[in-house]
Amino acid sequence: MLVKEETGIGVVETQYFTIAGGLSLENGEKLNPVTLAYETYGRLNEAKSNAVLVLHALTGDAHAAGYHAGEEKPGWWDNMIGPGKAFDTEKYFVICANVIGGCRGSTGPSSINPQTGKPYGLDFPLVTIRDMVAAQRYLIDFLGIDKLLAVAGGSMGGMQVLQWAVSYPERVRAAIPIGTAARHSPQQIAFNEVGRQAIIADPNWQDGNYYGGTPPTRGLAVARMVGHITYMSDVSMTEKFGRRARNQQKFFKFDNDFEVEGYLRSRGDNFVRRFDANSYLYITKAIDRFDLAEGNSLSEVLRNVRAKFLVIAFKSDWLYPSYQSQEIVRACKTAGVDATYCEICSSYGHDAFLLETEQQSRLVSHFLNRVAAGGGVNDE
Amino acid sequence: MLVKEETGIGVVETQYFTIAGGLSLENGEKLNPVTLAYETYGRLNEAKSNAVLVLHALTGDAHAAGYHAGEEKPGWWDNMIGPGKAFDTEKYFVICANVIGGCRGSTGPSSINPQTGKPYGLDFPLVTIRDMVAAQRYLIDFLGIDKLLAVAGGSMGGMQVLQWAVSYPERVRAAIPIGTAARHSPQQIAFNEVGRQAIIADPNWQDGNYYGGTPPTRGLAVARMVGHITYMSDVSMTEKFGRRARNQQKFFKFDNDFEVEGYLRSRGDNFVRRFDANSYLYITKAIDRFDLAEGNSLSEVLRNVRAKFLVIAFKSDWLYPSYQSQEIVRACKTAGVDATYCEICSSYGHDAFLLETEQQSRLVSHFLNRVAAGGGVNDE
Repeated sequence: MLVKEETGIGVVETQYFTIAGGLSLENGEKLNPVTLAYETYGRLNEAKSNAVLVLHALTGDAHAAGYHAGEEKPGWWDNMIGPGKAFDTEKYFVICANVIGGCRGSTGPSSINPQTGKPYGLDFPLVTIRDMVAAQRYLIDFLGIDKLLAVAGGSMGGMQVLQWAVSYPERVRAAIPIGTAARHSPQQIAFNEVGRQAIIADPNWQDGNYYGGTPPTRGLAVARMVGHITYMSDVSMTEKFGRRARNQQKFFKFDNDFEVEGYLRSRGDNFVRRFDANSYLYITKAIDRFDLAEGNSLSEVLRNVRAKFLVIAFKSDWLYPSYQSQEIVRACKTAGVDATYCEICSSYGHDAFLLETEQQSRLVSHFLNRVAAGGGVNDE
Repeated sequence: MLVKEETGIGVVETQYFTIAGGLSLENGEKLNPVTLAYETYGRLNEAKSNAVLVLHALTGDAHAAGYHAGEEKPGWWDNMIGPGKAFDTEKYFVICANVIGGCRGSTGPSSINPQTGKPYGLDFPLVTIRDMVAAQRYLIDFLGIDKLLAVAGGSMGGMQVLQWAVSYPERVRAAIPIGTAARHSPQQIAFNEVGRQAIIADPNWQDGNYYGGTPPTRGLAVARMVGHITYMSDVSMTEKFGRRARNQQKFFKFDNDFEVEGYLRSRGDNFVRRFDANSYLYITKAIDRFDLAEGNSLSEVLRNVRAKFLVIAFKSDWLYPSYQSQEIVRACKTAGVDATYCEICSSYGHDAFLLETEQQSRLVSHFLNRVAAGGGVNDE
């Protein structure tokens, strides 16, 4: 562990915060109790002006950086968060919270429903991206932070970034939405729908009442496989696998012939050990229903935003194509919001927000430096 | 039916041909009996020089044009085959055969295994694109045709076109591979693998022994949904659906909110009524294993080809991107094979080969005219 601690932020622990009085949801229902799993890295300064909220994607969690005791794999954005990294923990106090509806410590469909003493299952209310952000606001209040220096995240994390800037304009100084969209396209909805149908088609799903029994792991694995293809690119798959055949013994005709098949299967199999199928349904639904403008023009909705934007997209990302990021930038400009757009040349596809460390780091660190120095921020 | 008969080829019937003595497969096994379902349109001329073989894609069948008695929907390429159409039945004798391994009249995993008196299931041998083409050659022999004027098809049909030109160079005067590839990329394999895993994950699949019981319709429907997304484009889905919400009553939280979801589900549900899940496994496997060059250089393999090529690709086809068609053309040129390349501007994605009637028709009819007139054909 010594090497890890020298170059990164070392061992971290997930913490838990419960919203006193619960949370009123967008659909009018009340969720109570509501717990958020979160982690923090670095130190909050006395002025409480150096806090950066980092938000995760569909299957992410609060563990964004450092190592959990005894684990070999660091947090999902460890390459971006730490001393001297993009989100420099020697300068910034970085917070990452797991979304509600999830299954990694925050309240979700696998949590106990106090009315029944059993897991919610489908009795869990439909939550939205706005609800996720509203819950995070309570956490930021609890941490005593009036104004976030920045909110940043890729994919669904980027949707939360957009929602933060719109819902709480006076509390966000800078927004960094990466590889994301202001609303989901039919193709994006379709891929999520296939994943949901794969889960629902699994007889073990049992209308969501599988807790204590056998979970719908086969359906969830298929959903994850579909997702994985969309996270990569044609080029990155060819570079990673080519048509290399597997050398393993075959047990039946449809065992995998190609490395790419074995990779997808193992990714699917690993995933079901750490993720709850109902959470997959709820979170994908929240993503599909997300529409920042809600029928209005996007620039109209952005009119009250006071944050400065850095919008990042990736050339080979065909799941969240760059035109969706450009739409956000165009709407920002129309609304008079200070916005910088950068399209990074990468062959990694949508996964690039997790993998393109170098270019992303340079963009993010310069941007944060400028914002922290008070330059170009609309409200100062 | 009068209107139909005036503008098209009217009512047609599927015919059946059995290969005497069976078929020796690429893997060394023997398949016997082997039946091919096929249809023909137009008339074979006395010189037997006007035959065009048309080949179908993954889920297609022998019914390429005209109407089956009592049915409202014509064959899958009816917009391209008929009097005055691209494949003009007043000039050409058009043949379409269903592939072996399929479930639409040709011998496949749902056929009776003569050794057991029961459906083959997974005892059906793995067949290849080359096996499919070898079976078609027997049909062409049986029809008394020495030399095909042309072989044409899109997607998997295009793979068969390529294989025809390479396996039987002296029997093909022109080849029209459309929206296809000389071998499958890892991304293409990955999408097929997800479909297979969805079927295999369905408990009703029962290792392929579901005949007489409940077939794995839910898994097959999910496979079809994945396929459907890849056949369309981001643009065509947006044009067709936008984010229009469904007006129907919702029965539970994960009923469809958006039209695109309902569309995918109904496509999946319709498909399972006409297609066999094991055939889906066998045919996708044949596609994934297809590699025209088989480790050699593509131009080397094309050296003996005598057909003139018309290669067609579509700009928005991201499942079979145009670079794969360009590879075929480049290899043809390197091998001294006469090849014309045309990339059609279309927003339909991969489905364009079924939908872009006008531009495709012009390209195909001019090309066939020239070939029929003896112009530019390598061996005449």
